[in-house]
Amino acid sequence: MIIDCHGHYTTAPKQHEGWRQQQIAAFDAKTAPPPRPGMTDDEIRETIVNGQLKLQKERGTDLTIFSPRAAGMGHHLGGAAESAVWSRACNDLIQRVCNLFPQNFVGVCMLPQTTGVSPANCTEELERCVKELGFIGCNLNPDPSGGYWKDPPLTDRYWYPIYEKMVELDVPGMVHVSASCNPCFHGTGAHYINGDTTAFMQFITADLFKDFPTLRFIIPHGGGAVPYHWGRYRGLAQDMKKPPLKDHLLKNVYFDTCVYHLPGIELLTRVIPLDNILFASEMLGAVRGIDPETGNNYDDTKRYIDALSIPAADKQKIFEGNIKKVFPRLGAKLAQAR
Amino acid sequence: MIIDCHGHYTTAPKQHEGWRQQQIAAFDAKTAPPPRPGMTDDEIRETIVNGQLKLQKERGTDLTIFSPRAAGMGHHLGGAAESAVWSRACNDLIQRVCNLFPQNFVGVCMLPQTTGVSPANCTEELERCVKELGFIGCNLNPDPSGGYWKDPPLTDRYWYPIYEKMVELDVPGMVHVSASCNPCFHGTGAHYINGDTTAFMQFITADLFKDFPTLRFIIPHGGGAVPYHWGRYRGLAQDMKKPPLKDHLLKNVYFDTCVYHLPGIELLTRVIPLDNILFASEMLGAVRGIDPETGNNYDDTKRYIDALSIPAADKQKIFEGNIKKVFPRLGAKLAQAR
Repeated sequence: MIIDCHGHYTTAPKQHEGWRQQQIAAFDAKTAPPPRPGMTDDEIRETIVNGQLKLQKERGTDLTIFSPRAAGMGHHLGGAAESAVWSRACNDLIQRVCNLFPQNFVGVCMLPQTTGVSPANCTEELERCVKELGFIGCNLNPDPSGGYWKDPPLTDRYWYPIYEKMVELDVPGMVHVSASCNPCFHGTGAHYINGDTTAFMQFITADLFKDFPTLRFIIPHGGGAVPYHWGRYRGLAQDMKKPPLKDHLLKNVYFDTCVYHLPGIELLTRVIPLDNILFASEMLGAVRGIDPETGNNYDDTKRYIDALSIPAADKQKIFEGNIKKVFPRLGAKLAQAR
Repeated sequence: MIIDCHGHYTTAPKQHEGWRQQQIAAFDAKTAPPPRPGMTDDEIRETIVNGQLKLQKERGTDLTIFSPRAAGMGHHLGGAAESAVWSRACNDLIQRVCNLFPQNFVGVCMLPQTTGVSPANCTEELERCVKELGFIGCNLNPDPSGGYWKDPPLTDRYWYPIYEKMVELDVPGMVHVSASCNPCFHGTGAHYINGDTTAFMQFITADLFKDFPTLRFIIPHGGGAVPYHWGRYRGLAQDMKKPPLKDHLLKNVYFDTCVYHLPGIELLTRVIPLDNILFASEMLGAVRGIDPETGNNYDDTKRYIDALSIPAADKQKIFEGNIKKVFPRLGAKLAQAR
């Protein structure tokens, strides 16, 4: 079985994000937003059948762990009340996709984060998504300010309430920023990758996983810059008298394979223990074109794993085994869907 | 000849940065700073003989392109007047090192940048350093706010006055942030690498090098996350209808080899054209320890280049040829020093 642990609903019916614009406009104008628009099952089905599902079939993957569009989370827009309403709307929509295609999609939620508002604010929605909607994880934005990095580092006790709930529910978090409203940072080309690098370095400097030994994070986009600079990170940890990274972080931190060329994937699988690598493509996502050097889509990351000179059993870990370990609720979902 | 194009004076006599603290304290207290402390040639000589020069000899490199301590630039501290005085002091100190060891060090200056103050403010100091002190390049901080990214992207016309002067003087700039005052960003582990990634992505989105076809930048630390995500960057440029990166940026943008493990250097030299790679170690810098996996210093990057399976002529390009092209004033300096 081939599980893609990182997909966003980037193709949702237009009225979904159209309403979001109305909601934020209403917030700015201090008026009430219009009611949420309706979406038929057929409308949703069409966006999936011609989008993610089509690509799953073409590329030979079986299941996508699916969450709301990352850039659409927009935690820097509106206030906590707007974020709460929008999160529920986005997560409910993911559930509809998962209910329509239970063999192909399992849900992960976004959280109603807001800069300067305690993440304790997010525990209720996480619990609802896991217990009522059957979701198996969450996305956690390390920078709800959208590129100005105004909240404390992820190792600060500020974040502990959401970690306590994640541990209680036994769900992992993908550390994933949303859109950048800082003109210095291109979204998918700088803010995403910087967010990944920043989070990993935050984890190095502290002892978060002493407090939460079973807390698990996925750092997407191949871990940002981290595997390429693995010597730097090993050396920095050593200078700080931290344990080797394998002991310090790799029981809790995982990297996905959203790296869009073979040499990058080769580096990733060479320097990071294979037990810490989870298959993912983020399709349809940041990079949608065809690589003229290969004739294939940049984000068809399965081809890169297929091309690796590692034993089939190791590939199966990346495609399935590791993901089932990191998302323990996935097993029950799969049994249900059969 | 083996030229290290990225070294900072991280071992300056203590009174140098001691005075900087007094200067900033005086700024905060709205009083006058004390006069600059004296430093004897012997004091300076000692910090070099037991630091950079010792490592040059041990590692078998010949010359370091040398600039003030990057984290010490502190463009977010004080105001424009303080930055001007501090820049002159730092650059003058670099000149003293270069005069004491003309065979081993050639100067690159820091610029008196300040958030929100036009880089036109920096042209005079750049000209002084090049024409009077014999420097061959500058370091340009893309984020003088120290981790809050408050100034426009490097492709904005805001920066054009300093580019005009760089072009006029035919000197390249290394895009190098200073310390981070944002608690989210570890300096050498996040802010440095993010700065590199961010700058490269800024260059992709615009057409800066149409306006300045001879302007040259070095992106240090192996280009941040860029080579690891080369497929992503090629794909993003393609989605934006930009020319292939080779044509769009690689006549103007170069990467150094400050990547502290062999797999990273192998990736760099595999995906980035060898003409765009410049040897560097940033010793004594961010990572000072010995890698237990190799028994050698993490930042002894010459060993990684030595270990590559590429022709000797290509290694010589990385060690010398490319650097002389990017720093055209270096030839005259070397002739002088003989």
